[in-house]
Amino acid sequence: MGSAGTADSVDPATGVKFLPPYGMDDGTAASEACRKAAAAFDTYRALPTERRAEFLRAVASELEAAGEQIVELYAEETALGEARARNELARTTGQLRMFADLLDDPSWPEVRRVDGLVSRRVPLGPVAVFGASNFPLAFSVAGGDTASALAAGCPVVVKGHPAHLRVSELAGACVAAAAAATGMPDGVFSLVFGAGNDIGQQLAADPRIAAIGFTGSRAGGTALMGTAQRRAVPIPVYAEMSSINPVFLLPGRLEAGAAEVAAGFAGSLTMGAGQFCTNPGLLLAVEGAGLAEFRRALVPALGGQAGQTMLTERIATAYGEGVARLGSIPGTGRIAVGGEGPNPPAVYEADVETFLKHEELHEEVFGAAGLLVVCPSAEDLVRAAEHLGGQLTATLQAAPGDRDLALALLPVLERKAGRIVYNGWPTGVAVTAATVHGGPYPATSDGRSTSVGTMAVERFLRAVCYQDFPGGLLPNLGT
Amino acid sequence: MGSAGTADSVDPATGVKFLPPYGMDDGTAASEACRKAAAAFDTYRALPTERRAEFLRAVASELEAAGEQIVELYAEETALGEARARNELARTTGQLRMFADLLDDPSWPEVRRVDGLVSRRVPLGPVAVFGASNFPLAFSVAGGDTASALAAGCPVVVKGHPAHLRVSELAGACVAAAAAATGMPDGVFSLVFGAGNDIGQQLAADPRIAAIGFTGSRAGGTALMGTAQRRAVPIPVYAEMSSINPVFLLPGRLEAGAAEVAAGFAGSLTMGAGQFCTNPGLLLAVEGAGLAEFRRALVPALGGQAGQTMLTERIATAYGEGVARLGSIPGTGRIAVGGEGPNPPAVYEADVETFLKHEELHEEVFGAAGLLVVCPSAEDLVRAAEHLGGQLTATLQAAPGDRDLALALLPVLERKAGRIVYNGWPTGVAVTAATVHGGPYPATSDGRSTSVGTMAVERFLRAVCYQDFPGGLLPNLGT
Repeated sequence: MGSAGTADSVDPATGVKFLPPYGMDDGTAASEACRKAAAAFDTYRALPTERRAEFLRAVASELEAAGEQIVELYAEETALGEARARNELARTTGQLRMFADLLDDPSWPEVRRVDGLVSRRVPLGPVAVFGASNFPLAFSVAGGDTASALAAGCPVVVKGHPAHLRVSELAGACVAAAAAATGMPDGVFSLVFGAGNDIGQQLAADPRIAAIGFTGSRAGGTALMGTAQRRAVPIPVYAEMSSINPVFLLPGRLEAGAAEVAAGFAGSLTMGAGQFCTNPGLLLAVEGAGLAEFRRALVPALGGQAGQTMLTERIATAYGEGVARLGSIPGTGRIAVGGEGPNPPAVYEADVETFLKHEELHEEVFGAAGLLVVCPSAEDLVRAAEHLGGQLTATLQAAPGDRDLALALLPVLERKAGRIVYNGWPTGVAVTAATVHGGPYPATSDGRSTSVGTMAVERFLRAVCYQDFPGGLLPNLGT
Repeated sequence: MGSAGTADSVDPATGVKFLPPYGMDDGTAASEACRKAAAAFDTYRALPTERRAEFLRAVASELEAAGEQIVELYAEETALGEARARNELARTTGQLRMFADLLDDPSWPEVRRVDGLVSRRVPLGPVAVFGASNFPLAFSVAGGDTASALAAGCPVVVKGHPAHLRVSELAGACVAAAAAATGMPDGVFSLVFGAGNDIGQQLAADPRIAAIGFTGSRAGGTALMGTAQRRAVPIPVYAEMSSINPVFLLPGRLEAGAAEVAAGFAGSLTMGAGQFCTNPGLLLAVEGAGLAEFRRALVPALGGQAGQTMLTERIATAYGEGVARLGSIPGTGRIAVGGEGPNPPAVYEADVETFLKHEELHEEVFGAAGLLVVCPSAEDLVRAAEHLGGQLTATLQAAPGDRDLALALLPVLERKAGRIVYNGWPTGVAVTAATVHGGPYPATSDGRSTSVGTMAVERFLRAVCYQDFPGGLLPNLGT
């Protein structure tokens, strides 16, 4: 794997390092992976879709066969716990099988025929996938980006995330075993590990890479966007980056059930130590009796949530700094805090003018930190919504009597978010054919796309049309 | 229209200027157009799709009502002639009605429902459209970009092309009249004129613009791509830029009918003075008796094609320089030339090694200039194909006996082009639901898109999903 030093697999709860250390690629392995992916592309994309489906199902089976070991490594490397590991493993295998089912659907991919023209979708080419720290299975080596790219017919080169090296290695071995067992061409999948950003930048710049799937920080995503644009041939970047996932607490809803809303919010905010891209980091409400009741109810609701170990020391440090920054801005104050344990959840409050004035208050604090923005009127609530950046989600907590305000907010939220939730919480994303897990910049680099659900495969396809082709030259199209 | 000087409408055949000169925007009108487009957006997109269809049909009717005047101005400003004017006007109104029909299709835009999730496509926001010089109607003010953006629900701001100011003004008046007659919100459509690139750059940078449609030069398209990426919120750019549209003359085809191929090529190359984005600027063939016969047949076939006035003096100058550049490269030589008249068509020849060595030979010469690349073997033909950049089209001229070589070329061409033509010529694009008029960079800025046909509307849409929404809050979705 090259000679650019080593990195350790670490238990974030104890700081214990697991031996042996992992060798980091000096660029040789990444380059070789790209070469092999490009060589595999025409063969892989020409396979009947049922062969690709077989491959994806074999990956799911391999992951299940290695399930106990994966759960054990996951629990050791992430501090997210065994239940979450099992849950996420099931989601990951479910995703792979969902794309396999899509490939088995004879109406997919769409073919259009008009007079002498036949158009169909073809894959873009080899895809570089950058896994997320916070979903070591579902958004990582064998996660949604990999599954959707492979379903599309694109070979994949994954850069494994340093926060879960052993889980990545094992998942990568499962994909490789499935590829071998189902007779996929050599190079259809590769996994590389790299220290720092060099290997990622190298992959983004490699002329053999045709698209990028990324889940991570805004800094990381925008760096990849820049590299992808500066290439001789620019390529699409699908980067899911940051979102504060505003939740609008409408007056009628708070009057009817402030305590229920507070409990729901505290649960969503603290799930997985707040390490979700859909974490509800922003509440917006109109001042009044219902909001006063919500504030009161939030204190015990959040107080009952213990602090939790975060994924890495670096993430925990950034969380502490982010919370300190929230508290340091004039006009903000803490209104609720979590119980014992590391990285305690915390909720701050600011009035709407303070929120609009301070750009930092619009930025994500990765972890269980929230900000309540208080508006003097419903009009100010709509005005605050207009000032939000692009979001993965926006949520309305509303009662039937809030209908007019909900209808005033909806067109704004449709312009800002990829998913709009009604009387639910944004954490927890169903993996379906109707799912949109995307949103305008800076939530993602490309607001036209989703990284979850069957529509994610569209990211890696383009249409080609064939004019006046004789029978037999396009056997897959039946012409 | 501001105070940044004036520009003239000119007859390119005579140099005659038509009075009065047009005032050029100093940026004031463009900014006001963006403000009004943003203000109109929520109203316009909320209209029932049948209202938008009515608007598009009204634009078509207005263009037809002004048809005789449009044809007259078109003939005066473009030197393309009356027949082409009528043809292009019919295409333009046909496009508008095609998108109106799409809007009337109850299955469009797609709505997906899975459990509590409902997803649908929503428009991106105001679109800036930059018309092409070479299609003063079909790719200009009321052309395909405008029609598809309006169909999607996006207000449009057009920067009129300086090469056809009067046609632009009249087409713009038709759109404005249709908008007024069908009760569209103020600002749904604006037309501005600007000298140089300033107004275009201002539009691309304006925070109220959500996407760009452009047809023109690679320099112009890449400048817009850069501006769009440097914004605080980057936006998609759909730029159709340059393509040399390779045509592969396979041995069996040349042996069977070299003269027919030569005649077909000469006709396609010289159509509209070669001023088509799909102009077949590159031929590739294997040396042999068939090719020798093709060379012989091309001399009279091209000699029978007169030179033609080009769209502007600047374009004609660039054509002359491009032809001179083709001839100046060591290893190239002219093999055929057109008859009398300005800007005569010309075809040069080079061996494959010369072609692969000289990057300039891969660049578009806008106009009726062609290059024949001669390969010693079929393997060299495939190798040359692998070295091509992204193209709008690729064409196979093949006989049944060329099947193996055609099958070897097809996977390469699928990676390079948006449309692959069999035994036809690339000029002439049908406007249908199966059409792909796009292709990998540098043919376009975004190889996932088409600028012709119903799929063009997808460029201006993104998916939003609604979770657990109660009945009545989303009336357009029937929930």
